[in-house]
Amino acid sequence: MTSLDVQSAAVVDDRDDHLDDDYALNPAFVEKVVDAADRGDGLHLRELLEDLHPADVADLMGFLTSEHRAMVVLWLPPDVLAETLPELDDGIREEVLERVPAGRLAEALQELDSDDAAAVVEDLEDDQRRIVLDAMPEQERAAIESSLSYGEETAGRLMQREVMAAPQFWNVGDTIDHLRQQGEDLPELFFDIYVIDPGYRPVGAVPVSRLLRSRRDVALTDIMEAVTEIDVDLDQEEVAYAFEKYHLISAPVVDPGGRLVGQITVDDIVNIIQEENREDILALAGVSDQGRDANVLSVVRSRAPWLLVNLFTALLAASVISLFEDQIATLVALAVLMPIVASMGGNAGTQALAVAVRSLAMRELNRNNATRIVMREVMVGILNGTGFAVLLGIVVGFWFGVPMLAVVIGMAMIVNLTLAALAGVLVPLTLDRFGRDPAVASPVFVTTVTDVFGFFTFLGLATLILL
Amino acid sequence: MTSLDVQSAAVVDDRDDHLDDDYALNPAFVEKVVDAADRGDGLHLRELLEDLHPADVADLMGFLTSEHRAMVVLWLPPDVLAETLPELDDGIREEVLERVPAGRLAEALQELDSDDAAAVVEDLEDDQRRIVLDAMPEQERAAIESSLSYGEETAGRLMQREVMAAPQFWNVGDTIDHLRQQGEDLPELFFDIYVIDPGYRPVGAVPVSRLLRSRRDVALTDIMEAVTEIDVDLDQEEVAYAFEKYHLISAPVVDPGGRLVGQITVDDIVNIIQEENREDILALAGVSDQGRDANVLSVVRSRAPWLLVNLFTALLAASVISLFEDQIATLVALAVLMPIVASMGGNAGTQALAVAVRSLAMRELNRNNATRIVMREVMVGILNGTGFAVLLGIVVGFWFGVPMLAVVIGMAMIVNLTLAALAGVLVPLTLDRFGRDPAVASPVFVTTVTDVFGFFTFLGLATLILL
Repeated sequence: MTSLDVQSAAVVDDRDDHLDDDYALNPAFVEKVVDAADRGDGLHLRELLEDLHPADVADLMGFLTSEHRAMVVLWLPPDVLAETLPELDDGIREEVLERVPAGRLAEALQELDSDDAAAVVEDLEDDQRRIVLDAMPEQERAAIESSLSYGEETAGRLMQREVMAAPQFWNVGDTIDHLRQQGEDLPELFFDIYVIDPGYRPVGAVPVSRLLRSRRDVALTDIMEAVTEIDVDLDQEEVAYAFEKYHLISAPVVDPGGRLVGQITVDDIVNIIQEENREDILALAGVSDQGRDANVLSVVRSRAPWLLVNLFTALLAASVISLFEDQIATLVALAVLMPIVASMGGNAGTQALAVAVRSLAMRELNRNNATRIVMREVMVGILNGTGFAVLLGIVVGFWFGVPMLAVVIGMAMIVNLTLAALAGVLVPLTLDRFGRDPAVASPVFVTTVTDVFGFFTFLGLATLILL
Repeated sequence: MTSLDVQSAAVVDDRDDHLDDDYALNPAFVEKVVDAADRGDGLHLRELLEDLHPADVADLMGFLTSEHRAMVVLWLPPDVLAETLPELDDGIREEVLERVPAGRLAEALQELDSDDAAAVVEDLEDDQRRIVLDAMPEQERAAIESSLSYGEETAGRLMQREVMAAPQFWNVGDTIDHLRQQGEDLPELFFDIYVIDPGYRPVGAVPVSRLLRSRRDVALTDIMEAVTEIDVDLDQEEVAYAFEKYHLISAPVVDPGGRLVGQITVDDIVNIIQEENREDILALAGVSDQGRDANVLSVVRSRAPWLLVNLFTALLAASVISLFEDQIATLVALAVLMPIVASMGGNAGTQALAVAVRSLAMRELNRNNATRIVMREVMVGILNGTGFAVLLGIVVGFWFGVPMLAVVIGMAMIVNLTLAALAGVLVPLTLDRFGRDPAVASPVFVTTVTDVFGFFTFLGLATLILL
């Protein structure tokens, strides 16, 4: 979304008022808004909201209660409201959309590029969606409906249909003349002109800055460069990877026949990258984010599933311990020490896991180097295991005065840290091989391994050697 | 870095050969390269490397051994080698730089924008750096030295000095004429023309696509929009936040006097965002990434520090358990069940922590909503604690046939899950308040709380109620 254009010149001067040095919204400013809303002081509210960038308005909304948001929506200029909608957290957008009359919404959406408009329409209830779409001009409606016809999280959803294409026989002069004449159908901002063949297939791209610097009589085909085409059905994660890898600013989207159907710009990709990264971080912690505005029950529901899975694996670990009840009754020190082995294993496993998940996401780990990386992890596990075995062994030897107990816990430490390293890299590799997201279920597998084997090796070795 | 330009038209046609559908390097292609290098077949190697995008060359290098990399460097065209350098993993870049003669390197660096050239020079050994810089023309050397004079991870390091600035009295025609005449000093690609006042301070920006569409007699000040200025000393994380929030494509960098000194483009920011995200993920797992090419010892060293910290906290938890040795000897079921309470607490704490760390990174959590979010976490902890208390209570009741044991573990579960939720949000908030990275030390604090209090509450309650 290229919404720079509504950012008025006042933003720069006002920055002190509402932004901190790090471009985050100033908490004191938010409090001023809350005060004005509480007092029902619409005039002051309008003054505060004036010249706020839509991204700052969206940011502000996230810090307000539902009642205060209603006040803000009331006093927001229509064009700013339109630009704010695509920026809002999902839950807040749904709430705001329920409050805006369909006619006003239809008008607002026409201000947006087709990808942003579609993202908003997607969040409407079925009946409201029909009313809004019916109130829009044919062309805009078609663009939005076409966008929504592509699968979620695909290039088709991300792209905007507005694109600047030029036939391959044009020169720089033809292109500039065309640009000056045809104002309305072009995207608000664009960075590349796609050169197309008679079948509407992209054959190259000319960066706008290069067009500007070239003489009018130069043929486009002489200054164009290769394009990285994006298939319309490609998953957004892979689109983001292509942008990141090749430092793309924009890329043409093509249908299965190779025909140009739209373009994706890097500013949308930045959001996707953040989204995918958030998903990875949260998946590794076994949780999904419900947003800062979610209510307690939806947060409880989002956390319970993995806690339930963890309960089962914890019961499994407990059942392993229960096999050794007699030994523990004989030597209670075993109960005191066994969580150390499990905890160290869990930690080492999590370390290996995080590195592996990240490498897979960056496409830095595949069958070319999998064996090498797995062997390295095993070596790391053995070496760290040995180091900490010695350290812990000395502590335990002095603490309990039973040298063989120190030997047992040391041996268990080596075994468990090696298993942890192995599980930490093999589990995500296996999930990835089967086309699953390696971040999602990996942590629970890895900690099950480190808990179950941690308790089993320590208590088992103690039984064999000590008792 | 805007290196699209060296991507030749053949890339599109050859994509089947070396790229998978997701733009990742094809493992079979990597094996072909390894084979050719093994056979010492330079001609075949050159053929395989021909027309490879620098980003793909860098990707390839990451999958090769040190010996094979030396072969590839030998057969790489000089311009591709130059463009590849900034893309390489740090460790690999250092290795490659040692192999390239200083003269050839000085030549290669002149092909790059100043930010990329500086990033490469930064990695040179002191004596090699002096030789390379001495071999470069005055202007390029000054640009690189100036870039290196800014602090690491600041806007000054990220920016390129090449920038297109226009005085505020120019119109569209003046600007286009200037662009056509002055070829060499301009950046290879640019997206905005910065309008500056007589003091060289940016007063606005004109997107290149808008310039193209405007008549020659239109004043720049009539079509410019506000700019988001970046202070040259700003931390790169905050620069990335500004780009992401305002969907910036490029932004002017200003010195403390407000004068334009360079620009940052979004393609560099995408890399920063990925870097910061990787740091967060790895910090939460208590590990730093040494790269796919690191040797075993450097990986061991990168993992040991947090394992050592974890050993201390595990010993702390063990010492809590040792307070209850008599009780455990009396009722061994306590030893069997105590890890369940700690494990569930650890999980719940990690969930709350990941959400809080992510919210802080996205600037979605500050003093405006901290109280609300903390209260919500406590409620979530109590509700999930109660739910799992009932579930686990039933299991334990049937398993051990001691109803009061079920009551005790249920109570401990509620207390520990509530504490976990509280620690999960308060620890990162506190670290953030004191200006520390909330991702770095949080996990160890949180699991210390859930382990120590998990064992203490369960064993303590058992002592009070059961024994």
